Amino acid sequence: MTATLIGLDWGTTSFRAWLMGADGMVLDEVAEGPGILAAASLPGGFPEALQNAVGPWLAQRVPIIASGMITSRNGWVETPYQRLPLGVDALAGSLLSHGFGDRHIWFVSGAISDPDGPAPDVMRGEETEIIGHIAASGAAEGQFILPGTHNKWAQVQDGRLTGFRTVMTGEVFQMLCAHSILGRLIQPGPASPEAFRRGVLAGAEPGPLLGRIFSARSLALLDRLAGNEVADYLSGLLIGDEVAQSRQGGRAGPVTIIGRGDLAERYRIAFDLLEQKARIAAPGMARQGLWTIAQHAGII
Amino acid sequence: MTATLIGLDWGTTSFRAWLMGADGMVLDEVAEGPGILAAASLPGGFPEALQNAVGPWLAQRVPIIASGMITSRNGWVETPYQRLPLGVDALAGSLLSHGFGDRHIWFVSGAISDPDGPAPDVMRGEETEIIGHIAASGAAEGQFILPGTHNKWAQVQDGRLTGFRTVMTGEVFQMLCAHSILGRLIQPGPASPEAFRRGVLAGAEPGPLLGRIFSARSLALLDRLAGNEVADYLSGLLIGDEVAQSRQGGRAGPVTIIGRGDLAERYRIAFDLLEQKARIAAPGMARQGLWTIAQHAGII
Repeated sequence: MTATLIGLDWGTTSFRAWLMGADGMVLDEVAEGPGILAAASLPGGFPEALQNAVGPWLAQRVPIIASGMITSRNGWVETPYQRLPLGVDALAGSLLSHGFGDRHIWFVSGAISDPDGPAPDVMRGEETEIIGHIAASGAAEGQFILPGTHNKWAQVQDGRLTGFRTVMTGEVFQMLCAHSILGRLIQPGPASPEAFRRGVLAGAEPGPLLGRIFSARSLALLDRLAGNEVADYLSGLLIGDEVAQSRQGGRAGPVTIIGRGDLAERYRIAFDLLEQKARIAAPGMARQGLWTIAQHAGII
Repeated sequence: MTATLIGLDWGTTSFRAWLMGADGMVLDEVAEGPGILAAASLPGGFPEALQNAVGPWLAQRVPIIASGMITSRNGWVETPYQRLPLGVDALAGSLLSHGFGDRHIWFVSGAISDPDGPAPDVMRGEETEIIGHIAASGAAEGQFILPGTHNKWAQVQDGRLTGFRTVMTGEVFQMLCAHSILGRLIQPGPASPEAFRRGVLAGAEPGPLLGRIFSARSLALLDRLAGNEVADYLSGLLIGDEVAQSRQGGRAGPVTIIGRGDLAERYRIAFDLLEQKARIAAPGMARQGLWTIAQHAGII
């Protein structure tokens, strides 16, 4: 089958690429490659990283489209943020073309929420996944969470991204495990789904989060939490707080989780325990979003 | 004047000692010495550390009383926690005598809150400061905060400690500055009381704390928060969250801050901005507490 588009989802520490045929069908795929931190340190920088990762595809000379942190200040080229509400037309209309040898790459813009308000927020890459989900599911309304090092919670109305917030749960969890008095309690051993669930329920209790996390230490001191349970308990506690606090603004409706593997499943369990409807989206939303934006931009 | 008591407030990384005369008057004072981590690593351990710190006082052979993390599992001797409600009589009645050369030291017990409930909590040292405050002020009711690496929020009724909760604001602040993406935004420069106040107000907003802290990054990206303002903004944000979330349980009454210096002042400003009455207690509460417990125990 003839190739029509190369799509890149290029994050700070991740790289995924797809060679697509008609209708966005996947002809070939690269699931791992250097994130922008690693790529920037190569002698040939981003062009070398891309050549290494998808070199065999480049001979076909089809358009290339990229989204993610590759468009940030530390990326290949910095694109301006687009304001909300943001739909596929505005993203397609703001593609930035940047040279790559004797050809070019189309870069998707990031999104900015409430730029002049007290708590502005930004994303790069997740807007493409959300657009992909809208295109794939046909659902024009909804609430989304995209778990990761920095989670994004996003609202969609009338087929456009209308609001979002970043929550640093992943980074703070890793930091607490590596650098806090709580992390020193962690001992090797089997994972504990039960400790995770205990944590979720403790995380949904009232009071300051930085007070509730101390219960990991108190429970361990009293031999009511084993060393191999501490990390799962803490993970549950942070996720339980995030879920419970996020719906205090009245957003207790169904949530779609865009993500894969253990982390997406942890959120699904937390929503279930806290009695909020949630489901995990089908995989492939980044690729679907890149395809949809390229179509709307008329580059394929 | 004749000495009557040596009091030690011995924490994980701090050591303070007083030589007291009649009525607890301070005859001499040691403001700095090895905390228990440093003391434990000396060849002669805790006895050597104490001899080094207050050697000249020991010839007088007056009773010695100690409180703080020195009574924890990593301290000189581990004392059992006392249950709530906890007053001076129970603390005086549970002093533990432990040998020190040809004499002994009286160790004060720590306190435990809700030991069988879902979120037990523990303290060692702060109970003595609170007892000191009750004795010095005559106030039998009140809400207290003792800021530090691990803050303690405590309630007193009928002259006894009836509840408390630990909040890890200090440790998490230091961790975010040293190890997070937010910390990498920090640049040297003058302190910013204005950024601290902005942070307090942002911290009192609804939504998950780990979402609100990300505003430090967004604001910095948009050049609305300078590098020298990031740490003060973050400090305000964490303290604002702590104050706002702590009073959601209905505890919006006046608060007494037991502490000194910049940190106590930060809490006073935060309470003021969030319209909750607060005042900083007179200094010397640990010494006062040790004296009061020693009196009630009949050892002086």
